Parts: sequence; C-alpha cells; structure tokens
Amino acid sequence: MEISYKNIKVIGFDADDTLWVNETYFRDAELEFAKLLAPYETANKIDQELFKMEMKNLPLYGYGVKGFVLSMVEMALEISNNNVSNTTMNAILNIGKDMLNKPVELLEGVEDVLKEFSKDYKLILVTKGDLLDQERKLEKSGLTNYFHHIEVLSDKQEENYSKLLNHLDIKPSEFLMIGNSLKSDILPLINIKAHAIHVPFHTTWMHEQVKESETNGKAYKTLSSLLELKKVMR
Amino acid sequence: MEISYKNIKVIGFDADDTLWVNETYFRDAELEFAKLLAPYETANKIDQELFKMEMKNLPLYGYGVKGFVLSMVEMALEISNNNVSNTTMNAILNIGKDMLNKPVELLEGVEDVLKEFSKDYKLILVTKGDLLDQERKLEKSGLTNYFHHIEVLSDKQEENYSKLLNHLDIKPSEFLMIGNSLKSDILPLINIKAHAIHVPFHTTWMHEQVKESETNGKAYKTLSSLLELKKVMR
Repeated sequence: MEISYKNIKVIGFDADDTLWVNETYFRDAELEFAKLLAPYETANKIDQELFKMEMKNLPLYGYGVKGFVLSMVEMALEISNNNVSNTTMNAILNIGKDMLNKPVELLEGVEDVLKEFSKDYKLILVTKGDLLDQERKLEKSGLTNYFHHIEVLSDKQEENYSKLLNHLDIKPSEFLMIGNSLKSDILPLINIKAHAIHVPFHTTWMHEQVKESETNGKAYKTLSSLLELKKVMR
Repeated sequence: MEISYKNIKVIGFDADDTLWVNETYFRDAELEFAKLLAPYETANKIDQELFKMEMKNLPLYGYGVKGFVLSMVEMALEISNNNVSNTTMNAILNIGKDMLNKPVELLEGVEDVLKEFSKDYKLILVTKGDLLDQERKLEKSGLTNYFHHIEVLSDKQEENYSKLLNHLDIKPSEFLMIGNSLKSDILPLINIKAHAIHVPFHTTWMHEQVKESETNGKAYKTLSSLLELKKVMR
C-alpha cells in the first residue's frame, strides 16, 4: 500500500525509547530487584509477579517511575511473605531514585532529524508517564527548542489523541505520530485516521506488546532508525 | 485599592482545596503515619521530619500522592533506624491507596459558581500534582464540562503560568486565577501582571505558606467563599 505524507503539517514524536533510552533502565531495575529478592524466589518468577503487580496498580498509579517503585515495594513485602529486610527496602527506594537521576541518552539520529524536520513541520512531543520526570528528561535532552508543544498524557489511547488534536486544532489527516510502541504510538492513530510511523526499540515492555492480528491491514510504515525518516517523507 | 475585572476573558481555577477537599486528606494521612511510627518518636517530631523528607525529595518526586507515599516509606525506615516492621510498611502503602481512592468532596458553591461563570467566561482548570490523579479527581467531580481546558502543571511558578497563557494565547490582563494558595495561585499571577483572587481553605500545607511581607502591596482580593465571586465580579 502506498502511503502519502503530503498533507502532514504536524509531527508528533513519542519520547521514551523513540528519542532517548528508557526501557533499558526499567529492565536493569527489574534485574536489580530480582537480585535483591533472590532469597525468596527465582528471578523469572519475581519478574512475572512484579509485572502482575504493576498491572494491578496501573489504574491507580499510572505510568512512570514512582508507581513502578511503589509496586516493587509492595511486591517485596508480598513475595517475601513480610520477611524482607529494611536494607532491601532502602535499596528498592534507591533503584527508583537512580532511575529518576539517570542522564538522558539520545538515540541515533534524533538531533539531526528534529533539526531537519522542524524547518518544514510543527513538531510536538507526545509522551506519557510522570509529568515532572518527563519534563526533566526533555530539559536534560537539550531538545526542548525543536518542539512547538509538549504534551504529557496519562495514557495514549484513541480518545487521548483525539482530544489533543482537537485542542491543538489539527486535523487527523494532517498529523503524523512517530514512536516505538505499536500499542501507544501507532494503532490509536491509525484508528482515528491520522498517520503513524513505527520505529521499534530493541526491547518492548510486555504491557506495550500487541498481537499480530491487531496490526493486520493497518497502514503504517516501520523504519529501523529515525534517520530513515528523511527518505520516507521526501 | 480598586481592582477592575472588566477585561477578564478567561478564569483559571485551582483544583485541590479550591474546588474540592484535598489538604484534609493529607493531614489525616500524616496523623495515621505518626500513629504507626509512635513506637519510635513523638507525633510532632514525626510530622516535622516527614515534611523535611518531602522537601528533600520534592525536586525528584514532585507534587502528589505517590511522591508523598515514597517519602513516608523512606521516613519510616529512617526514623525507626531500620527497625520498622513489614506490617507497618504495608499500612503505609495502604494510606496512599486510600488517598487515591477517596471520593471527591466539592467545596461550597463550586457547581453554582462554575455554571454561572461558564456563561460569560472561558473557564480553565489549572492544577499541579500527579497527572493521572488529578484527571481522575476531575472526572469524579462531574465538573469536566464546565472547563474549556485542563492543565496539570509540574509546578505553579511565574514561568509555568507565562508558558500556559502563551500557549492558550491569553494576555495576562485578560486572565484571572482563583485559588487557595497564595504561593501557587496568587503571587505568581500578580507578578506576571495577571489577576488573582484568593479563597483560603481552612488548612494550608506548610510548603504553600508565605510570609506576610511577600503579600504586602500586592493587588488581589480575598474571599471567604467561592460564592462571593458573583458579587465581586459583577
């Protein structure tokens, strides 16, 4: 299927794992957490149970590091049958603080692509998670000035995008979203008749994974790097 | 000093303790926390130390319930010299979950005033804290439809307001902010030459308190209830 981008006026970029590394830090944190709780369970079981706990708490805590830390604390109490030590509790809090204090590591080609495309398009940043954490990461990234608007959403479903486009007075046909998550950055956009380009990151959080059947017949392109955007959009 | 509101086109409402009860729940949580840690310290000392911990963590965690819970967990470890029980840890997590699950209790006159003023002004909601928590409270409040725009800020300083007014294309002279916090809802607005009306709540978080010298000579009105707004704005 030939996809035309000639009507695009505004490009939305996802942030975590599209502009900069994020999921890798969560994976590292999970590994560290599993090590701390090794006396009580296998690493694999701890991973599974932590994911279940995160999903249970998601409606209450939402996305982001703080909710993740609270879920680790709760999981540590549960999986140790209330035998976990206070030393481990302190270590869990520190995993979270370290995550929030991480430097921002830009992905390949990001600055190039933003510089190039900000000449001809309005660029906006569309991310989800902790408001303060996302603002801090953007500031650390040095990319703020490329963006006309920053939007931190509590979730990235069709309704959230429709509201955003309405608010910014953009027609779906004029909007292109670029991101690494099929579930959050691609499918909702295709479903509201906007455009989307998928740039996968090497690892995807289980919660963001979708079945192949959900992407069947959906009109979006997949690129292996943001740098290919120049070729595709020409 | 006579203040004229005749140029006002947009009214911004703070949410917590302006439209609905919030600080009361934090006070209750602090009391409960102090009870849990009574074996280790006096209630007064625990209160003071928790506040210090919140201030230490504020740059990292920001405002809202999740950061508050993480600070309680850290404080419990510290004040007990790592002797706090896992039962107490569970109780602390539950304090936070209860806060997030609280029903929304509207303050006097809120619905009346919003209904009335939405006829002649654009109303926007301007709040800070956890994004998801604030969205959830707004939804529970049933007030969503009165607002033309919802803005959750990571902080409420002059710069945050200037950006917001810019983004919404509103001149400061056309904007009136209404809220309970002198520090967050009133002084930054006066300083950027917008308008502000103070409607105090019966209790104010220590972090939001300002010295009398900071309000000297600032042109804002104070009302004892939102209901007085009709008289003042006529």
